[in-house]
Amino acid sequence: MSPTALALDPAAQDLLFREAHTAHSFSDEPVTDEQVHAVYDLVKYAPTAYNQSPLRVTLLRTPEARGRLLPLLSEGNRAKTAEAPLTAILSVDLEFHQRLPELLPARPQLKDTVYADPDLRRAHGSFNATLQAGYFLLGVRAAGLAAGPMSGFDAEGVDKEFFGDGRQHALLVVNIGHPHADSYRPRNPRLPAEEAVTSL
Amino acid sequence: MSPTALALDPAAQDLLFREAHTAHSFSDEPVTDEQVHAVYDLVKYAPTAYNQSPLRVTLLRTPEARGRLLPLLSEGNRAKTAEAPLTAILSVDLEFHQRLPELLPARPQLKDTVYADPDLRRAHGSFNATLQAGYFLLGVRAAGLAAGPMSGFDAEGVDKEFFGDGRQHALLVVNIGHPHADSYRPRNPRLPAEEAVTSL
Repeated sequence: MSPTALALDPAAQDLLFREAHTAHSFSDEPVTDEQVHAVYDLVKYAPTAYNQSPLRVTLLRTPEARGRLLPLLSEGNRAKTAEAPLTAILSVDLEFHQRLPELLPARPQLKDTVYADPDLRRAHGSFNATLQAGYFLLGVRAAGLAAGPMSGFDAEGVDKEFFGDGRQHALLVVNIGHPHADSYRPRNPRLPAEEAVTSL
Repeated sequence: MSPTALALDPAAQDLLFREAHTAHSFSDEPVTDEQVHAVYDLVKYAPTAYNQSPLRVTLLRTPEARGRLLPLLSEGNRAKTAEAPLTAILSVDLEFHQRLPELLPARPQLKDTVYADPDLRRAHGSFNATLQAGYFLLGVRAAGLAAGPMSGFDAEGVDKEFFGDGRQHALLVVNIGHPHADSYRPRNPRLPAEEAVTSL
């Protein structure tokens, strides 16, 4: 199927997927709160189970906040994070059920039944916040920005340093900025659909 | 920030996010393998750690294959799945490391070092396949189709029934089809950016 056979127009396909890359450095141009809010206010419409919406985004705006994160990153992620225009911690709100009566008015009882169990909240919330992390990365691109997502960090350490009350658990750290000519590394190969998709 | 302040054009924003909804029923129009391949071949470019690309998509094409899934779904998900034009199981390939030398030619050694550990593979692979599941759901919309993702199923049962060799683990079941007038339920509220995004 050619790109034009999709309903999404080819320029949008390129912006979000084909021409987009993980960025390892950025231009000096800042990223505003308004831009990040626009990203979230777009991707918040994508689905989560029971409309849990458990993703939380913590922007490290001050040098002091960024400095608290750096030693908790794996060594290879420190220099580029120190220099990025903006760094965000994507986390799951482990108390997301407190908002359910408002987010899912048809089933307010879930807050005090199924989701009274903290282990279940952690499992379901982490899964759904990870779906939302995927939406968010594409949303960053939708804003004309580039993302540098990183899993290489001490998640327990980040939880303790930033979410000391145990209410949130860090899933992904993402550098965000405007790309420049040297932001990207060459594209690695991908599995073709013929290998990743099977029919029974 | 207005929708037009994003780089993604407003029609694409609507198609993927603002006007898109989880579908609970579909028109009779079939969904072809070609369409699903086009979805995968678009979203495969979105990022995973070390380019793991661990998501696998299993399309239940035959009535027999669909029939094996139905009793493993929670009761409320059975009738709509029996009637959907197409049902897919999204899973993580727990042996994704076998493909790493090809997917990440710069670091082929990861296959036999870090990812020799099956527990680490399961944790990292599930996280990254879940990011890809998020991309895939948006890709279904990019194809002009609607998705009905479901977490309500017996994952261990599905693994045993469909992935008996223990190589894959089911993450999400998704009905896919063309939406019609009664596909959607009214939109539930979302958290505004002011509540989900904080700055430090």
